[in-house]
Amino acid sequence: MRVGVLGAKGKVGATIVDAIEAADDLTFTVGVDAGDPLTLFIDSQTEVVVDFTHPDAVMANLEFLIGAGINAVVGTTGFTDQRIAQVRSWLADQPDVAVLIAPNFAIGAVLSMEFARQAARFFESVEIIELHHPHKADAPSGTAARTARLVADARKGLPPSPDATSTGIDGARGADVDGVRVHSVRLAGLVAHQEILFGTQGETLTIRHDSMDRTSFVPGVLLGVRNVGDHPGLTIGIEPLMGL
Amino acid sequence: MRVGVLGAKGKVGATIVDAIEAADDLTFTVGVDAGDPLTLFIDSQTEVVVDFTHPDAVMANLEFLIGAGINAVVGTTGFTDQRIAQVRSWLADQPDVAVLIAPNFAIGAVLSMEFARQAARFFESVEIIELHHPHKADAPSGTAARTARLVADARKGLPPSPDATSTGIDGARGADVDGVRVHSVRLAGLVAHQEILFGTQGETLTIRHDSMDRTSFVPGVLLGVRNVGDHPGLTIGIEPLMGL
Amino acid sequence: MRVGVLGAKGKVGATIVDAIEAADDLTFTVGVDAGDPLTLFIDSQTEVVVDFTHPDAVMANLEFLIGAGINAVVGTTGFTDQRIAQVRSWLADQPDVAVLIAPNFAIGAVLSMEFARQAARFFESVEIIELHHPHKADAPSGTAARTARLVADARKGLPPSPDATSTGIDGARGADVDGVRVHSVRLAGLVAHQEILFGTQGETLTIRHDSMDRTSFVPGVLLGVRNVGDHPGLTIGIEPLMGL
Amino acid sequence: MRVGVLGAKGKVGATIVDAIEAADDLTFTVGVDAGDPLTLFIDSQTEVVVDFTHPDAVMANLEFLIGAGINAVVGTTGFTDQRIAQVRSWLADQPDVAVLIAPNFAIGAVLSMEFARQAARFFESVEIIELHHPHKADAPSGTAARTARLVADARKGLPPSPDATSTGIDGARGADVDGVRVHSVRLAGLVAHQEILFGTQGETLTIRHDSMDRTSFVPGVLLGVRNVGDHPGLTIGIEPLMGL
Repeated sequence: MRVGVLGAKGKVGATIVDAIEAADDLTFTVGVDAGDPLTLFIDSQTEVVVDFTHPDAVMANLEFLIGAGINAVVGTTGFTDQRIAQVRSWLADQPDVAVLIAPNFAIGAVLSMEFARQAARFFESVEIIELHHPHKADAPSGTAARTARLVADARKGLPPSPDATSTGIDGARGADVDGVRVHSVRLAGLVAHQEILFGTQGETLTIRHDSMDRTSFVPGVLLGVRNVGDHPGLTIGIEPLMGL
Repeated sequence: MRVGVLGAKGKVGATIVDAIEAADDLTFTVGVDAGDPLTLFIDSQTEVVVDFTHPDAVMANLEFLIGAGINAVVGTTGFTDQRIAQVRSWLADQPDVAVLIAPNFAIGAVLSMEFARQAARFFESVEIIELHHPHKADAPSGTAARTARLVADARKGLPPSPDATSTGIDGARGADVDGVRVHSVRLAGLVAHQEILFGTQGETLTIRHDSMDRTSFVPGVLLGVRNVGDHPGLTIGIEPLMGL
Repeated sequence: MRVGVLGAKGKVGATIVDAIEAADDLTFTVGVDAGDPLTLFIDSQTEVVVDFTHPDAVMANLEFLIGAGINAVVGTTGFTDQRIAQVRSWLADQPDVAVLIAPNFAIGAVLSMEFARQAARFFESVEIIELHHPHKADAPSGTAARTARLVADARKGLPPSPDATSTGIDGARGADVDGVRVHSVRLAGLVAHQEILFGTQGETLTIRHDSMDRTSFVPGVLLGVRNVGDHPGLTIGIEPLMGL
Repeated sequence: MRVGVLGAKGKVGATIVDAIEAADDLTFTVGVDAGDPLTLFIDSQTEVVVDFTHPDAVMANLEFLIGAGINAVVGTTGFTDQRIAQVRSWLADQPDVAVLIAPNFAIGAVLSMEFARQAARFFESVEIIELHHPHKADAPSGTAARTARLVADARKGLPPSPDATSTGIDGARGADVDGVRVHSVRLAGLVAHQEILFGTQGETLTIRHDSMDRTSFVPGVLLGVRNVGDHPGLTIGIEPLMGL
């Protein structure tokens, strides 16, 4: 499979180029950065392009790629409902082209959310602990808040997690996100970690995800590159490509 | 729902009777032990019977219950292929009756195996650590060996987990179960615990199950009691009742 | 060594009697409960008595034992400064007698607090997560609050743990105990667990204590029985007997 | 305090220069690499020099520094008994000079070994799990083997950890290092991690160390720089500077 990269000189783009070159089943064709002509992808017979660029650039990139019949794997942010609708309308004219837009390529993060959703309705209790480096501005993390809402949604109709707390110190029981308690640890030395704890009589189930460095998006991007072609049209999130 | 218990005076049976009595939506009808007539279940209009008895008794129990049109949730062991076939043939004559036979009612154990199966093909590496009290005779545990085989099966066609070990001490890298490394810890103070570790570039996903005491089968038995009726015929394992 | 038990028919006392009988180097002499004469300990040539009774009874017990020259290991609660002074004054007249009064006999809990104290001044960051069954009334637990104060005291003069949190949901960052963040998880299936997390550049150190059942005081009581005689006078806490 | 660095252009040396420049209480004086004159440290009135160079260079460096009355913090490897004796003889003539030679500057690693040593004799059971990236050649890791021997030594005279294993698969129970079982996990995504598990009746104590990146030596080096002057003569390992 012949793969090109948009934003190839950026930190993320360069990491992706390295990963493509290291993969036996993929051939790196060309890297395109600001100022380079997009037609380089056509000249190099590129089949899939990875786009980790900028909200200002990504829509023009997609319009070109879809028009040229080239599949796309997109990690660039800033996709509003309006932008999504625009991409769909371009794809309507090119039914064989496949575009994947994903907010999170870390396979472990995606699976842990999916497993939390599946497990949620079988346990009396659920709480979330997320642990990050101390430079993080928000608490809880966006991922933890999203996981909590997902779990709360899956538990709809069930009684709340039991909790006999009657005395204590403010904050000990964490933040309440749709009825799910979320605890945020900030510690020097950590990167990005999350535990979802489920409990019922006599047993607990813990799903833990550890992001050790900034390259954890790579396996998910490669999975996208390899499988996007089997999903013509627009796909949001890597879950459908994982059969979830 | 009206629920009876076979083997009600045994340790497990008594725990189940307590749990039925504590549940708002279930009514305990009658406990039947060796020597008591099975017709007590008919007299008491029992709808579901839980059987944690003995391989010597369970077949006669099931023949009676199926004949009487009463559903059964069975935790008794010793079901050979031949016995399974016999139960199916009895059920063929009673298409509305439902029988659930499960080797493991611990919901957390069942879910962790299922999640391991789902995650297996998305990670480069997988290993299993199981941790038990030091009175356990087998290493690895039956659950760990079964989980390893399940994971190995789901990874079929993928390269083995990378491992550059070239020097060391025998046993350091654990037992090899179908290509999956399994490590068995035996420690005073522990009960029964298992971690399945998955890793890929920059991230890991860990699924941990902790059994803290011997009553962790209770929620799974109640789930069986409440849902077996929606699955006429024979069901093996609680997974189908959990929508897995 | 000849060992007797006060409160031998209580749940805790009975567990201690079993443990003494199971130990090769200890001989169980006699159990004394409300109504029994304390002189039974003299008649049976008891050398050490374990007291897990009641605040209303313990002072009379100690006055008798000290007077009779019998060492004591005490887990009964309710020792005010005034009571402690009284015990010391009785011991002043019997310089060879040894009394151990300990608020916590769980060796793992005692060690984890001691290690937290030792580690505290070497790390930029410290936080505590305590996890308990959902029937617990207080949050954070008494042990977690005590650990946090111990750590805060050991860190005196150091800058606070770094924390860039600027937006979030109330409670996410836990309770503030003397500048140490404490998070309280309440989950069905858990017993009593605590993690103390330390972090600095590129590394973390975690000290985790798991109490799996209510008998975790036994090894500490036996350690007290075996060693109290080497510490004449009054000893508070098992730490000095552990060489800490 | 005025601090210089030997091997300043190496990866480790450059990280140390950055850390010195970032510390308010330290002043970076000069970096010296192969070919540069060591007298630069005298010209710049350097008080402490950090040496992360090469076994071929370190002895000449130390002879110069000791002669010039400059303290040294050394992470270079290759110190045989003979080399240690040589350093001591140089220091005998310069009683005010302090040299610290340490095999491991990671504070968390040092503390976890020290805590393991302290805890070892209070628990029935102990096992070690070490977890590393899959490119590691040796299993178990040198740190795990050293920790196991330390623990075994502290447990001398105690019965072995209980273990009823009678059937199983080779390797499941790990490597036997002086009677302590050590399990080596190799997993993509991991860096360097170690858990020491202690257990007794009803409770466990776990000491876990996580090295998340290659800069975890920095806090220990700075601790060495700040405190070496209080320990004239030769100090082996950072433990004495930590009051352990």
